[in-house]
Amino acid sequence: MRTAILAHGKFPDRAKTAVGVLRYGDQDVVAVLDRERAGTTVGDHVSGTDRGDVPVVGSVADAAAFDELLIGIAPIGGGFDDSWRPDVRAAIERGADVTAGLHYLLNDDEEFAALAAEHAVELRDVRRPPDDLTVAEGVARDLDSEIVLTVGTDCSTGKMTTTLELVEAARANGLDAAFVPTGQTGIMIAGGGIAIDRTVSDFTAGATERLVREAAEDHEYVFVEGQGSIVHPAYSAVTCGILHGAAPDRLVLCHEAGRERIHGYESFAIPEPAAVAETYQRLAESVAPAELLGGALNTSHLPADEAEGAIEAYGSALGAPAVDPVRGGVEPLISRL
Amino acid sequence: MRTAILAHGKFPDRAKTAVGVLRYGDQDVVAVLDRERAGTTVGDHVSGTDRGDVPVVGSVADAAAFDELLIGIAPIGGGFDDSWRPDVRAAIERGADVTAGLHYLLNDDEEFAALAAEHAVELRDVRRPPDDLTVAEGVARDLDSEIVLTVGTDCSTGKMTTTLELVEAARANGLDAAFVPTGQTGIMIAGGGIAIDRTVSDFTAGATERLVREAAEDHEYVFVEGQGSIVHPAYSAVTCGILHGAAPDRLVLCHEAGRERIHGYESFAIPEPAAVAETYQRLAESVAPAELLGGALNTSHLPADEAEGAIEAYGSALGAPAVDPVRGGVEPLISRL
Repeated sequence: MRTAILAHGKFPDRAKTAVGVLRYGDQDVVAVLDRERAGTTVGDHVSGTDRGDVPVVGSVADAAAFDELLIGIAPIGGGFDDSWRPDVRAAIERGADVTAGLHYLLNDDEEFAALAAEHAVELRDVRRPPDDLTVAEGVARDLDSEIVLTVGTDCSTGKMTTTLELVEAARANGLDAAFVPTGQTGIMIAGGGIAIDRTVSDFTAGATERLVREAAEDHEYVFVEGQGSIVHPAYSAVTCGILHGAAPDRLVLCHEAGRERIHGYESFAIPEPAAVAETYQRLAESVAPAELLGGALNTSHLPADEAEGAIEAYGSALGAPAVDPVRGGVEPLISRL
Repeated sequence: MRTAILAHGKFPDRAKTAVGVLRYGDQDVVAVLDRERAGTTVGDHVSGTDRGDVPVVGSVADAAAFDELLIGIAPIGGGFDDSWRPDVRAAIERGADVTAGLHYLLNDDEEFAALAAEHAVELRDVRRPPDDLTVAEGVARDLDSEIVLTVGTDCSTGKMTTTLELVEAARANGLDAAFVPTGQTGIMIAGGGIAIDRTVSDFTAGATERLVREAAEDHEYVFVEGQGSIVHPAYSAVTCGILHGAAPDRLVLCHEAGRERIHGYESFAIPEPAAVAETYQRLAESVAPAELLGGALNTSHLPADEAEGAIEAYGSALGAPAVDPVRGGVEPLISRL
């Protein structure tokens, strides 16, 4: 599928959906839309992909032909920014489908719904959960598969990336591994999953349990993408439901080097990562005890020489192996399985 | 409002909505419907209400005239039991409104919706949350009011009852106290609030924060009804969202004397109550530290002489004052405020 990715004003650092699809998706990306960076290429902003040549353009009108416009920004609150409207409109008028992972559902937008019907294109709201979710049965802890969950000290610390790298490395080591996506970007990459943060809170653990059970039917190792953080003032309900619904055997704690405050909630300090890990384990214990498999540190903002020391210090603090999945891979974690 | 309460086969022990409304609501209750206990009266089953004379009848046809049928059962999963259908149908045909707090929405039931339109009655689904919820801003901890949250070792341990008794006792002591209902029964009693377990998990803390902010505008003491339990394999997401969204100054831990297993999830042991209290405090601490105001023990299944010892032991274990709110009131907790 030829895909254009909308990321106005946010590419790459605050457009994690865009970057995730560029890194891990199998879409044929023809352009990134960011009017503030028009004229550059993906390679000017994102390393470690084979899509460095993809142009960053200012609007749909400047992009090569595509079949799908993908909204590549996941703002706090999941709202639709009206400055994106002209490009969504133009994409539909060019006959492209539109894929979004926002709380705001494109299908509920009267203009887009009418325009999509007129041009016979599809509006895919991947954040809309299934209609038949139920409460958890409490059975995930009894599954034979080994369940590994990534958890974080905050949002946007690298949980999805770490999970995908773990799956890739596990498979490279001959392990029968499944990826369980729980957020919009993971769903766009994997073509399945449930946006857990959009589920009714009574069913949050149940939705996670369903995904884990399905994955465990066919796979010996199940890697579950975590969401939010248990110390987050707004999103911890999502995190807690995933933790108890997945009943993981092992946890990987994801943290961004140097981050000391909750992103977007700067009056809230992030406790020491080791203390956050203990809080996760304490909370897991009452439902299903979980070991700390290791730590994943996002050091993308550090020079290479500082990164190495930061990873080492992180591992020492946690008392467990630590890696930066993007810089050095996750082999030290996989080898413990 | 003249109200009939449906509680077929579940009255009183598994019909906590029915019992809550009988104890604390200001509806004029004309009958309880329970076909297995028809011919008895409320007083045969529930003590401590002034409605002992209300008859328990087998169906709508046997009830005196009423304006509202209230579904008084809150089953796990919140489903509608089709054995209730004839009575709901009959109530609508008699011109009565129907109030329910189920996940299953009466307004989405084609038969009921059509029948209600035909008979010009209202179907009130109190569990449907507002459409305009958002993520929490993280401001509840900065409110000037004193916020007290009831939390539990499990579901159905007496959180709503404890909260209502706290509010009543606080007012009797001259404190300016508000009740914040977060579940269907509390909403039916108070005529306001949000069913937090029905909110989208990303907005669970935000919905709680909204209720607490509104209550704090006019009241110095805000008593928030908790939900579920942080050690519950299915419902902990709801509990966690309320804990962080309300950012309480004080917690009251509710427990049922002798209960050792999670109700309906018997393979899950309830940790020692003191350990559960520590888990709540540990989790609260990262967002807003909370003190343990005391414990509330439901001793309704114990004889009076055993109850006293159980309450004392519970308080010793918690290292805080303990009460049975129904047997002895909550004065020892209120006097600490």
